Amino acid sequence: MIVEMKKGAAKISVDAVVARAKSLGLGVQMNLGTDKTVVALLGSNTGQLSPDIFAVLPEVESVTRIMKPYKLASKEFKTTPSTVTVGGVEIGGNRIAVMAGPCAVESEAQLFEAARVVKNAGAAVLRGGAYKPRTSPFSFQGLEKIGLGFLAGARKEFDMPIISEVVDPRDVENLAETVDIIQIGARNMQNYALLTEVGKQKRPVLLKRGLSSTIDEWLTAADYLLAGGNNQVILCERGIRTFETSTRFSLDISSIPVIKRFSHLPIVVDPSHAAGHYALVPAIAKAAVAAGADGLLIEVHPNPKEALVDGLQSLTPSDFSRLIGELRLVASAVGRSI
Amino acid sequence: MIVEMKKGAAKISVDAVVARAKSLGLGVQMNLGTDKTVVALLGSNTGQLSPDIFAVLPEVESVTRIMKPYKLASKEFKTTPSTVTVGGVEIGGNRIAVMAGPCAVESEAQLFEAARVVKNAGAAVLRGGAYKPRTSPFSFQGLEKIGLGFLAGARKEFDMPIISEVVDPRDVENLAETVDIIQIGARNMQNYALLTEVGKQKRPVLLKRGLSSTIDEWLTAADYLLAGGNNQVILCERGIRTFETSTRFSLDISSIPVIKRFSHLPIVVDPSHAAGHYALVPAIAKAAVAAGADGLLIEVHPNPKEALVDGLQSLTPSDFSRLIGELRLVASAVGRSI
Amino acid sequence: MIVEMKKGAAKISVDAVVARAKSLGLGVQMNLGTDKTVVALLGSNTGQLSPDIFAVLPEVESVTRIMKPYKLASKEFKTTPSTVTVGGVEIGGNRIAVMAGPCAVESEAQLFEAARVVKNAGAAVLRGGAYKPRTSPFSFQGLEKIGLGFLAGARKEFDMPIISEVVDPRDVENLAETVDIIQIGARNMQNYALLTEVGKQKRPVLLKRGLSSTIDEWLTAADYLLAGGNNQVILCERGIRTFETSTRFSLDISSIPVIKRFSHLPIVVDPSHAAGHYALVPAIAKAAVAAGADGLLIEVHPNPKEALVDGLQSLTPSDFSRLIGELRLVASAVGRSI
Amino acid sequence: MIVEMKKGAAKISVDAVVARAKSLGLGVQMNLGTDKTVVALLGSNTGQLSPDIFAVLPEVESVTRIMKPYKLASKEFKTTPSTVTVGGVEIGGNRIAVMAGPCAVESEAQLFEAARVVKNAGAAVLRGGAYKPRTSPFSFQGLEKIGLGFLAGARKEFDMPIISEVVDPRDVENLAETVDIIQIGARNMQNYALLTEVGKQKRPVLLKRGLSSTIDEWLTAADYLLAGGNNQVILCERGIRTFETSTRFSLDISSIPVIKRFSHLPIVVDPSHAAGHYALVPAIAKAAVAAGADGLLIEVHPNPKEALVDGLQSLTPSDFSRLIGELRLVASAVGRSI
Repeated sequence: MIVEMKKGAAKISVDAVVARAKSLGLGVQMNLGTDKTVVALLGSNTGQLSPDIFAVLPEVESVTRIMKPYKLASKEFKTTPSTVTVGGVEIGGNRIAVMAGPCAVESEAQLFEAARVVKNAGAAVLRGGAYKPRTSPFSFQGLEKIGLGFLAGARKEFDMPIISEVVDPRDVENLAETVDIIQIGARNMQNYALLTEVGKQKRPVLLKRGLSSTIDEWLTAADYLLAGGNNQVILCERGIRTFETSTRFSLDISSIPVIKRFSHLPIVVDPSHAAGHYALVPAIAKAAVAAGADGLLIEVHPNPKEALVDGLQSLTPSDFSRLIGELRLVASAVGRSI
Repeated sequence: MIVEMKKGAAKISVDAVVARAKSLGLGVQMNLGTDKTVVALLGSNTGQLSPDIFAVLPEVESVTRIMKPYKLASKEFKTTPSTVTVGGVEIGGNRIAVMAGPCAVESEAQLFEAARVVKNAGAAVLRGGAYKPRTSPFSFQGLEKIGLGFLAGARKEFDMPIISEVVDPRDVENLAETVDIIQIGARNMQNYALLTEVGKQKRPVLLKRGLSSTIDEWLTAADYLLAGGNNQVILCERGIRTFETSTRFSLDISSIPVIKRFSHLPIVVDPSHAAGHYALVPAIAKAAVAAGADGLLIEVHPNPKEALVDGLQSLTPSDFSRLIGELRLVASAVGRSI
Repeated sequence: MIVEMKKGAAKISVDAVVARAKSLGLGVQMNLGTDKTVVALLGSNTGQLSPDIFAVLPEVESVTRIMKPYKLASKEFKTTPSTVTVGGVEIGGNRIAVMAGPCAVESEAQLFEAARVVKNAGAAVLRGGAYKPRTSPFSFQGLEKIGLGFLAGARKEFDMPIISEVVDPRDVENLAETVDIIQIGARNMQNYALLTEVGKQKRPVLLKRGLSSTIDEWLTAADYLLAGGNNQVILCERGIRTFETSTRFSLDISSIPVIKRFSHLPIVVDPSHAAGHYALVPAIAKAAVAAGADGLLIEVHPNPKEALVDGLQSLTPSDFSRLIGELRLVASAVGRSI
Repeated sequence: MIVEMKKGAAKISVDAVVARAKSLGLGVQMNLGTDKTVVALLGSNTGQLSPDIFAVLPEVESVTRIMKPYKLASKEFKTTPSTVTVGGVEIGGNRIAVMAGPCAVESEAQLFEAARVVKNAGAAVLRGGAYKPRTSPFSFQGLEKIGLGFLAGARKEFDMPIISEVVDPRDVENLAETVDIIQIGARNMQNYALLTEVGKQKRPVLLKRGLSSTIDEWLTAADYLLAGGNNQVILCERGIRTFETSTRFSLDISSIPVIKRFSHLPIVVDPSHAAGHYALVPAIAKAAVAAGADGLLIEVHPNPKEALVDGLQSLTPSDFSRLIGELRLVASAVGRSI
């Protein structure tokens, strides 16, 4: 942490910074510049201290945190890449895991048809939402427990691990018993009550990036899960909110190499929610694989025209099959497989 | 809802749009342009329909929703301004309500000292967080139930209504019994499990704007509360996330006249979280009053240097007293009082 | 400048940083932390050095610039507020300068009628665009030299200083002879050819903030003008681009106190371009005055319904007169006048 | 264009909209909804009309433009993909064009060394900046005419077409004589004086996306060039400004399929400026190729540690060679070559 004093700051103000730092067990080194005094604070946990503690002191001009705010998710904490294994599928290894299925579970028939389709095409994990976070109270809210039952049925019938979203801390245990991967949605990335509850489970968890979250905030949210004892965390980039309106969100493709540089956690990409339109999904999916993503989360619906939720961004079975074929070529070009 | 067909779209594609519209009970009017067919869909609830239902059909180029996605929060639904009364304080009337106090309840002494200070200076409502949503799991998380007890004590001792934040649906009932206004924080604006639970209560609720939420999404979140039966909703602008880094968030001052134009709900402004620095709070607070805000939510700490949370953006008692004096002049200039 | 080395960086890498710093005449202080070596670089111009010079060296983890990138515009360079005087009007003093008029000069009659109206209502400066930067090549592009002639006429007839925009470095001299304040538009804030040319003039210049420029970048653009020798610079906040679509841009009200904190330059606000709709202009204008703006730039048109450019955000003469009356009350509340 | 009237709008207000539309030669179709009157305006150039013309009329609630604001750059105007050929290199065809070289021309030796390196590795075009737009007036501003001379020399020596940026309308002709592709930088995307001048040339032009420009605005800027008569336009995505700070800009990977969907113009990607750090360039470059980009613009410096500009984002010769090898595999996976 670097504390810059105002030009001509009094010695008593500098001393106050030093005293506060020492009271927190930090090392202090003074840099007496020509213009200004700059105080460097050293310690192993300065990333977790709030800069405000010093910024609030008299004659402090600015405080800059050099260390990252996250800890357990960082590559400095664990230097080798982590993998998460679920139902025989390893996420973060050489093979790229494709998770696919409908946005919402609408009926047993719809889910089973989707499962059959995505399994045949080569998907490793079945996705399907039983609990849906919907922006309007007048929209379809999901089948909830009934949907979970259909997911459990599909899991058995098609012998595929399943991933489904949790939106309420009261549902976490129930969901953890049924699904193979618990999904935390973008709008809940900083829902700490939910993070804390999921952190207590032993189930793998997929943590979507908040739609206006920096990568630092995302990894700090992952720290919540890791600090709770759940170390099977998968990150998921799904687009961030920007001024551009031709897509639903702007997929931050650079987040893939940035995560690989600063964290040991695996990262998958959801091209469907970012694009908002099926015609854009293949290009984004291929880009994600080329950039090093460890997996994909793709919406597929047996009949998108009749979908209750997000039909526009869902692929048809035949489009999905064709895409998997194309993705295999790109994966191979970067030394991986699907 | 306006459906634009692709140039040269086949009649069968246009017919499919018409058939889908009719199946949903919508009126249909065709606009046969020189270049393209444009289909207008008419009905009283087209704002609540997803454009995707039509966008997914063949040869549709674009779908534009003309109606707003929210309903109950709109001025068309209720043409007169709503007010919320709590402990004798009316929010949304001529008098501007100042809610002030520490970010987090740290101890009984700290809270009582803050309450005394803000009451003397002219605040109408005492704020203080017992449950804190913190970005890092290693930060102070709030006193929780003990904090609620201190708030109840301060309420009685200083005869002031209190506002405090809820972050977990399981705490809603408990909080609703203790506080006068339930606060939903920015990161929970689209936490539907929480919105649904708070919607069932009879307590007034202050709904902060999500840090990357459009005004349309904010009012649609308010619809969740209103649809649940809780019609005592206060909106709170607290800054949005932008590329600018000199402030913590960018306070969207224009949201005040926009809300007044499209909604009947009262709106208050939190200058503290937007600014992130005490030196900027007075200017933003005065701007909010001049722009027509119905209230302010300001962080005040007896001793910001020792604050456990957000000390940098907290005003000292003397700064707060001076600011109230300045705000009274601005309020008077726009025909209101504090 | 603070250079953080990677954990376990070799001594030779640290030495390379030190050598590079010394070659640039910087002082160096080493901070040997428990985990990492952090090197502080000291000197009077570290704000103007690119961090990349060090970031590119081996085993450097990050480089953080502590000093601001601008210099001449900073309060550290000149501690007293600057004022700009034009035609007897002082901008940056106690009196708030209202500049008003049509977006584009359309005809002599339209301009003279606008001038009469805004002068009577109390505006200090007449605005009007002769050269228009238009997003589409198919839109009206301005009257150019003919428009400048009308502006010169209005200046004489109504004895008001005028402000008008320049968009081409080849027009700068010509414009500098005719107008009292040269305006640089938002889309040209980083048009360095234009900045350099305007920096050579002796005319006051109003520099609009770029629609996606940080405050640091804005003040660095002001440095271009100041470094060129033109020290009569007025800043103008006109809204930044965000995800919100209910207004044309999001006026960054906090930029006013931030500029007052870090710069000596006066700042005015353009509520019209930010709002994009006349109904929102009064609230934003009052907010700007309350927050400490030194002036306003407001679009007024004798007949907005017939305006060739930006009619929707223009006030009618009667709305403008009423607003000036309201603004006088707010100005008085913050100890100023109009 | 769709004009929504306010609920209960008077007939006279609706009539005014109709009259205005007819005066502009537009067709009008009325949609009398249960709640509101909605007027559809039809015509071949409604995309180029400002919605404000109608929004300013009495009792108009909103105006929505259905047609795109650009015309000549659209796929509706020209349905087949355009290619640009320069020095035997076709951009927009099956082969992906790699343009590479230093950010700034620093000396003849540096440029020739870079040219040798990128040519050997397989680049098709040499890039190098003679005129540099720099954010600070205290930074290196480019070698200008001397740099152009070096570029002309390298062109001859290595028999490669060259691309270089123009920042001043007065330099356009001069540059057009020397270089094969004129580059318009991101900060000048809406510099209409410059666009107009370049539009008059017969040289191919590469138009970078403005850092806060929507895709619609970008294609409308391309319309300036096309309307001027220069139909050899190449688009270049180089990252947009968002709240994320781990990269210099956020590369909008989705812009590639969006451009392919709505425009006939070729699109290349600049991963270097988006990333801001050499370690991130390869992943983004591979993603761009996988997503369908027609070319890449990559910064390569013989010795990035000594670069005067943007050294941190420049690849070394060996990193560039390795990347080209990897890109060939990805290109092949999507049916193209390099």
